[in-house]
Amino acid sequence: MHSAITSAMGLRCTARVSRTFATVPGMKKVAIVGSGTLGSQIAFQTAICGYDVSVLDISQDAVDKCAAMHKAFAASFVARQGGAQARGWVGIADEYGGDAQAAADATLARLSYTTDAAEAMDGVDLISESVPENTEIKLATYGPLHKHAPAGAIFTTNSSTLLPSQFAEVTGRPERFMALHFANGIWDFNVAELMGHPGTDPKVYKQVQKFTDSIQMVPILIHKEQNGYVMNSLSVALMTAAQDLVVRGVASPEDVDRCYMLTPVGGPLGPFGLMDMIGLRTVVNVNNLWGKVLSDQHIGQQMLANGAFLQENYLDKGKLGIMTGNPATDTAEGFYTYPNPSYMDPDFIAIKK
Amino acid sequence: MHSAITSAMGLRCTARVSRTFATVPGMKKVAIVGSGTLGSQIAFQTAICGYDVSVLDISQDAVDKCAAMHKAFAASFVARQGGAQARGWVGIADEYGGDAQAAADATLARLSYTTDAAEAMDGVDLISESVPENTEIKLATYGPLHKHAPAGAIFTTNSSTLLPSQFAEVTGRPERFMALHFANGIWDFNVAELMGHPGTDPKVYKQVQKFTDSIQMVPILIHKEQNGYVMNSLSVALMTAAQDLVVRGVASPEDVDRCYMLTPVGGPLGPFGLMDMIGLRTVVNVNNLWGKVLSDQHIGQQMLANGAFLQENYLDKGKLGIMTGNPATDTAEGFYTYPNPSYMDPDFIAIKK
Repeated sequence: MHSAITSAMGLRCTARVSRTFATVPGMKKVAIVGSGTLGSQIAFQTAICGYDVSVLDISQDAVDKCAAMHKAFAASFVARQGGAQARGWVGIADEYGGDAQAAADATLARLSYTTDAAEAMDGVDLISESVPENTEIKLATYGPLHKHAPAGAIFTTNSSTLLPSQFAEVTGRPERFMALHFANGIWDFNVAELMGHPGTDPKVYKQVQKFTDSIQMVPILIHKEQNGYVMNSLSVALMTAAQDLVVRGVASPEDVDRCYMLTPVGGPLGPFGLMDMIGLRTVVNVNNLWGKVLSDQHIGQQMLANGAFLQENYLDKGKLGIMTGNPATDTAEGFYTYPNPSYMDPDFIAIKK
Repeated sequence: MHSAITSAMGLRCTARVSRTFATVPGMKKVAIVGSGTLGSQIAFQTAICGYDVSVLDISQDAVDKCAAMHKAFAASFVARQGGAQARGWVGIADEYGGDAQAAADATLARLSYTTDAAEAMDGVDLISESVPENTEIKLATYGPLHKHAPAGAIFTTNSSTLLPSQFAEVTGRPERFMALHFANGIWDFNVAELMGHPGTDPKVYKQVQKFTDSIQMVPILIHKEQNGYVMNSLSVALMTAAQDLVVRGVASPEDVDRCYMLTPVGGPLGPFGLMDMIGLRTVVNVNNLWGKVLSDQHIGQQMLANGAFLQENYLDKGKLGIMTGNPATDTAEGFYTYPNPSYMDPDFIAIKK
């Protein structure tokens, strides 16, 4: 996904990997609990790296949608072999003598789908939970999993905003529970944040780190609980400052992105391009939620003002961003107009003639 | 400079420019006031784009150093023709039939140096002021310039933290005065922020925008006065959040940078790599200055804590960053060890084997 963006990023990715395709010794089956945007990606990435993966969701409709998504991911994996390789997929086809279709077929064969917790938990070594980002739902999820899973299985949550200590007790196995947080588009943005709670066994943290490596993610080691982990702590700070400049009429979204892209830390898109990818509804939700939590601080007031501005000027006008769509091909409105938003044009940061 | 970093960035820069090397009609001579790091770069970039440039500083020693720097820049311009082209230098050699040495020689011939304000201001069309970032020094600078400069000359300040309205009156020509702010390494990071004060003539703003285009900078149009302009508003927010994570022991500088580099907005280096480039003394000064100004806010307290942490763990141990040095070849200590800091190694963001 986002192939035009990531082809630029792919240039940073050297393909000189000579590795042995290997799961972690003693780990064979992984269960993915919750098969939405991220859950379905984690399931596919885990299966393509050689694990047997059982996908668990609450309805047949949900798991059917996930299975369909996996066929699309498999087709995308095959289609992308000729171009810039996703970092999380480097070397995978080599495990099949360069036959990407064989790799895709084997991946799909390793994936199974169920609405039955007992079936999903049977013989599982590691669980990755991606149910909706809602405390009540997450609290209700772990009991049945613990009941059916082997005592030695490690539980991980993919939460990006909630802390593992909030759920440690209900997992029934607090010492074998921690956060393992992935980014949307995980084979392109192949980073995983590891964060325990105070009761997490260091050996479990280490084992999860090995698992992270084995599914071709770059591990980010977080040493204490932190709202927003590392990734969102940085990106929320950047996006809040960027929105504030636009809300107060200092500069346009395009000029803010352009300026950012031209600095030494600048990437292939700027904060407003990122917000379109995240989806403006989510950006508004984050602004409103954290704006309230931090309302006694200046940044909380900025976030509330940013949320109100985006609601009025974007959401209320049906401009929602592009989310999981492909900016190069899909039609959408956000800060930019898709397909082919102006920031993807080399002229966006080129000198004027 | 920073060629190893910028070669990665250069991949984003298409070399398909077919332009006519042309100064703005009616503008021929530019004076650069203050010949330090930025002033010397602005002077060189302006001269290489066809303007006669007079460099003014307070001592013969200062202008001699600037002249020596310009010879080094010229040699760098010639040396870099084979590799990734600096965005601000694209197409320059073509103006001389591809003869980069001829372009370099012509550039040096267009540069003159003086400690005499009357001489520097004689017949000048535009002034770019880069004296030290100190209100008193800047206030004392403009009187003699106004006295000797033609009435029609435009004055610009390269200040990055002070606002043009603070100096509008002492320029003697407030309607012909505004900020034009460049980034360190201006031919690689070829961005210029335009910011007027309430009394700036819109025609002057427009004329400065044309000048910006003519010296191959991408203009960022700022519509009202803003501390930190756009660039530093974003980078300070990012760097403050990054430092806060390290100061509170959440993650290492390397993991913070690594995580950042792997996100969709990530560039070829992260916030700690950037801080090393800026120089840790400057980062501490910014933390202390703005920490005090914003001390009634949470972010001000973070900045003060960040400043104290960097002072104790870096400055007091002689770790100052790399500043204008070349990270690929120079020896230095900061968050990273130079030359060849770990973030420049492709393995820094590669999957583990």
